[in-house]
Amino acid sequence: MRWMRYEADGAIRYGIVEGDQVLDVKGDPFAGYEKTSTKRALSSVKVLVPVVPPTFYAAGLNYPEHAIAAANKRGEVPKLPDNADIGYRAVNALIADGEPIVIPADATERVQYEGEIVAVVGKKAKNLSEDEALSCLLGYTIGNDVSERSWQGEDRTLWRAKNTDTFKPMGPWIETDLDLDAARTIVRVNGEEKIDFPSNSMIFSIPTFIARMTKYMTLYPGDVIWMGTEGATENIKHGDTVEIEITGIGVLRNPVVREGK
Amino acid sequence: MRWMRYEADGAIRYGIVEGDQVLDVKGDPFAGYEKTSTKRALSSVKVLVPVVPPTFYAAGLNYPEHAIAAANKRGEVPKLPDNADIGYRAVNALIADGEPIVIPADATERVQYEGEIVAVVGKKAKNLSEDEALSCLLGYTIGNDVSERSWQGEDRTLWRAKNTDTFKPMGPWIETDLDLDAARTIVRVNGEEKIDFPSNSMIFSIPTFIARMTKYMTLYPGDVIWMGTEGATENIKHGDTVEIEITGIGVLRNPVVREGK
Repeated sequence: MRWMRYEADGAIRYGIVEGDQVLDVKGDPFAGYEKTSTKRALSSVKVLVPVVPPTFYAAGLNYPEHAIAAANKRGEVPKLPDNADIGYRAVNALIADGEPIVIPADATERVQYEGEIVAVVGKKAKNLSEDEALSCLLGYTIGNDVSERSWQGEDRTLWRAKNTDTFKPMGPWIETDLDLDAARTIVRVNGEEKIDFPSNSMIFSIPTFIARMTKYMTLYPGDVIWMGTEGATENIKHGDTVEIEITGIGVLRNPVVREGK
Repeated sequence: MRWMRYEADGAIRYGIVEGDQVLDVKGDPFAGYEKTSTKRALSSVKVLVPVVPPTFYAAGLNYPEHAIAAANKRGEVPKLPDNADIGYRAVNALIADGEPIVIPADATERVQYEGEIVAVVGKKAKNLSEDEALSCLLGYTIGNDVSERSWQGEDRTLWRAKNTDTFKPMGPWIETDLDLDAARTIVRVNGEEKIDFPSNSMIFSIPTFIARMTKYMTLYPGDVIWMGTEGATENIKHGDTVEIEITGIGVLRNPVVREGK
């Protein structure tokens, strides 16, 4: 099942995607819902981010080749993370499928995509074992962890490198029935494929993160966990279109503009 | 004016504190409100955190003696931050005035208080100058940025060191008419004063942070910015009570318990 959040008739709604239509529900997938009889063409609604998370978690370095590429760029000896230590991103930066990534006027040219699978929490959870971990999830969506690499290297925190407004495209919907082991993450810029990797080839798995996180923290419905990206990443610039596809979920597509251009 | 959030008659409400009473309003201080005629004794309502922030910002190192004390403990040469680079905390960790700080069973004894003034955003804001910056605030409240120092030193991120459930007491209310330059932050453990410092003696001022943040980010109503603490901090343990007073706001008081004790 695919859960979409959208604006139609001046209201924010959840619905179930069926082909090129979406079926309105009363309620939402977290607190409960009832199907209605209203179907709308997907092309007629304004797509919104599939959820506004209470807490926005991100794994950061969690794929081996990306960790090595990042260390090489800094001129450091690659060192994989020792533990599944989660990080954070910020809600202000979220944009929906189709909305523009806006590069600030004073950013360098080193603004890069990062295609990521996103786990969406469906139920309140504390102290889950690895075996139980996936039971708290509603499903999966797609994220693009856009990053300004000069700020990422120079600032004391990741605040503007990762959390500038529009730097966190997420969507287009939440897929509840994904075969995680079969899924592949594919990044394209202007239609040209940049990387294609198994979405689940992580250093620390989703259950490992959730078990470790819920030892100390309560997860809440709507929390999202961005799982990191693989490989070296490349610059994106004004006029580009970035697509992150995860097979079995869909495609997250955003144009890129530079402020003042 | 003092804005309090609380549970009464099974509903979550905002109200205006008047002495030892609170006046219910319809609505809230962010979207708009109307006063009602219902007054309640403060002692009769369940105090909640004064706001659940869309984004939870924290300045981190922002007072000179705390920055020096922290560096000394790590055996490093003290270096003050170069820029007002904001950081983040997590909503799961928030608790209200009076609720217990719960130290996990596997934490070391190095769990410490940090008394902080908290700026509460009242209006959507982007691209504010330093002169305009304070105009986006609704007011100020009090935070205790409880920290497990061994995890803070060893983990890759601050996730459990700073964001374990219950590690972020905030409240008891939002004061809209604070004289920031006159305010003092006082920390007491079991009634014994640990530190007393001018709340506004920051390395980077609140306007400096807001101007720099809003160059890249939109602030939203309810966002909170924790401004950091001063001085060396000490351990707190099972059975202690921690009070953070900010003169002109009030007192945030929380007992401490250790899990399994």
